[in-house]
Amino acid sequence: MDGAPGGTVGEGGITPDELQLAARNHGLPLEALRDPITPAGLHYLLIHYDIPAVDPATFELEITGAVDRPLTLTLDDLRARERVDRPITFECAGNGRALLEPRPVSQPWLTEAVGTAEWGGARLAPLLDEAGVKPSATELLFSALDKGIEGGELQSYERALPIGEARDALLAYDMNAGPLPPQHGFPLRLVVPGWYGMQNVKWLTRITVLEEPFTGFQNSVAYRMYDADGEPGEPVTRMLPRSLMVPPGVPDFMTRTRHTEPGSTTLTGRAWSGYGSIERVEVSTDGGSTFSAAVLEPALGPNVWRGWSFSWEATTGEHVLSSRATDTGGNIQPLDPPWNLKGYANNAVERITVQVAP
Amino acid sequence: MDGAPGGTVGEGGITPDELQLAARNHGLPLEALRDPITPAGLHYLLIHYDIPAVDPATFELEITGAVDRPLTLTLDDLRARERVDRPITFECAGNGRALLEPRPVSQPWLTEAVGTAEWGGARLAPLLDEAGVKPSATELLFSALDKGIEGGELQSYERALPIGEARDALLAYDMNAGPLPPQHGFPLRLVVPGWYGMQNVKWLTRITVLEEPFTGFQNSVAYRMYDADGEPGEPVTRMLPRSLMVPPGVPDFMTRTRHTEPGSTTLTGRAWSGYGSIERVEVSTDGGSTFSAAVLEPALGPNVWRGWSFSWEATTGEHVLSSRATDTGGNIQPLDPPWNLKGYANNAVERITVQVAP
Repeated sequence: MDGAPGGTVGEGGITPDELQLAARNHGLPLEALRDPITPAGLHYLLIHYDIPAVDPATFELEITGAVDRPLTLTLDDLRARERVDRPITFECAGNGRALLEPRPVSQPWLTEAVGTAEWGGARLAPLLDEAGVKPSATELLFSALDKGIEGGELQSYERALPIGEARDALLAYDMNAGPLPPQHGFPLRLVVPGWYGMQNVKWLTRITVLEEPFTGFQNSVAYRMYDADGEPGEPVTRMLPRSLMVPPGVPDFMTRTRHTEPGSTTLTGRAWSGYGSIERVEVSTDGGSTFSAAVLEPALGPNVWRGWSFSWEATTGEHVLSSRATDTGGNIQPLDPPWNLKGYANNAVERITVQVAP
Repeated sequence: MDGAPGGTVGEGGITPDELQLAARNHGLPLEALRDPITPAGLHYLLIHYDIPAVDPATFELEITGAVDRPLTLTLDDLRARERVDRPITFECAGNGRALLEPRPVSQPWLTEAVGTAEWGGARLAPLLDEAGVKPSATELLFSALDKGIEGGELQSYERALPIGEARDALLAYDMNAGPLPPQHGFPLRLVVPGWYGMQNVKWLTRITVLEEPFTGFQNSVAYRMYDADGEPGEPVTRMLPRSLMVPPGVPDFMTRTRHTEPGSTTLTGRAWSGYGSIERVEVSTDGGSTFSAAVLEPALGPNVWRGWSFSWEATTGEHVLSSRATDTGGNIQPLDPPWNLKGYANNAVERITVQVAP
């Protein structure tokens, strides 16, 4: 299956359980990489349980735990604070999972679980100052309104974050200058620039300041990288660098193999990293044997993908195209997928098969 | 895999080709059946090729072929006509495909390829009158801006419709009171109330009045029901009746099996048909052995799904829930999936497994 954007899918078909997830959740159609800001309906989506129906009139956010002055805030209270609008790139921690071998069974992403929206909301830091976080605080627990069973446990989705990582966080009530759509966390979600998507807690209703490490499911069992069950592993945190290109030409409906004509072709795409700015993007037109530098567009800001372009003289025949990002933190995308049991953070370089014919 | 909404998925895992389609396209998350009008980002999507980037300032719609006065219309021209806003239910012709056995290989839908939006635009009929359709005309060909390869043929998406079926059609430039999102055909799409989704041509750019039957791919090869390649088959046209329920309780993340507590539970859902109004919805809580009448909500209008509710006394244990629609045309949903080679129009009753425990 060389036609697959991102390469081949591992042995064994996608299971019925996985199909149920794939039918609900969806990636960015890769042609939408042409837009610096992703329209809301094209942004990738990963929803653990059901989308809750929330009445914005009675909605409240609680800030509680190890604070001097617990706060309860309505949406109007939040909208009355200084407003920030920032384009920020999100990527699912499971992006690339279905390309691993052996293939971890869960939401079966190829390479498309990404998107960049302009998030509008209130900064978290001044609200924490207002609540008076105790010096003994170490983590913030973000709790949501969606409920389900995972790992055999009935739970509301909740994720903790080291308190030092929250400086830059937003409490977003708007997406692309409109209210959050239901599937993106209406009426309020957390946005933690640079982190994988699991930290951008949707339908956020409570922030609890903790003085001890949180041991709940989404931090201690899920979203950890280990090779076998029972290992403690390493937590999934920031996005590793990745670049994706707008697939050139036109697709075959079923195989998605790309077809284009010979001649000068401008390849374009976008690259991002949660560990720094994008320093370099390189393109290969020979299946990853050799890479040449792409031209970078000006950066749109911190924690936003960066556009690039590359001139390709397409010749008749089959070609495998790839792009590869390097960030200022010295991280570079690997050619071979890094494997872990749950299939997180596979940022191996994409492989796009193109048939060139007159 | 009894936990699958809609029943079991046929033998053999989903292939890599199908996964690429499933990662791009998406269904309605079934909890969104609670909304009479589906938010744009939750409405199902099936896109054959790539989403084209269209400049609305230079966009034109041509009405040509067997007419006395060919027309070329800008978006402003269309917006200057009488405006109609109508909620209309859409369903993909391939809905239910992945539940067939043997399983046809294409976009692998379970039961969720549906949605209802309020479509705003100009009526087609007065524009045809203005162009002066010749009495010899038999079909209308709707041609779009998206391009790809299908059945080995490079093509723009285009679908013909018998001219008598076009009376009620809209040329929609708005969805849910905003401009069409790119993935729903920006800046203009056709809406043919009552027909399966393939007829609601997105990115519409040309209407050609024909005097002979159209023999292009999407009418003569695709969207036909036959049992073996080479048979002429019957064309896919209007939506057969179907009812779906809001899955009760909460989901298990991976299996999507529902979990709820014993006691009085109100089941709700929506039902539709392209062959008439919904006359009756019945619910089964014993895997389809017996059915009892649900209470119908008032109809929202023609060609819109109709809400229903049903009181269920949930008892501890595992239950399989189903709902079944009958329309005023005398059509009723079958318990067993109707099979054809390409997997169209499988409107077999849903099966939702629920675990009830205190």
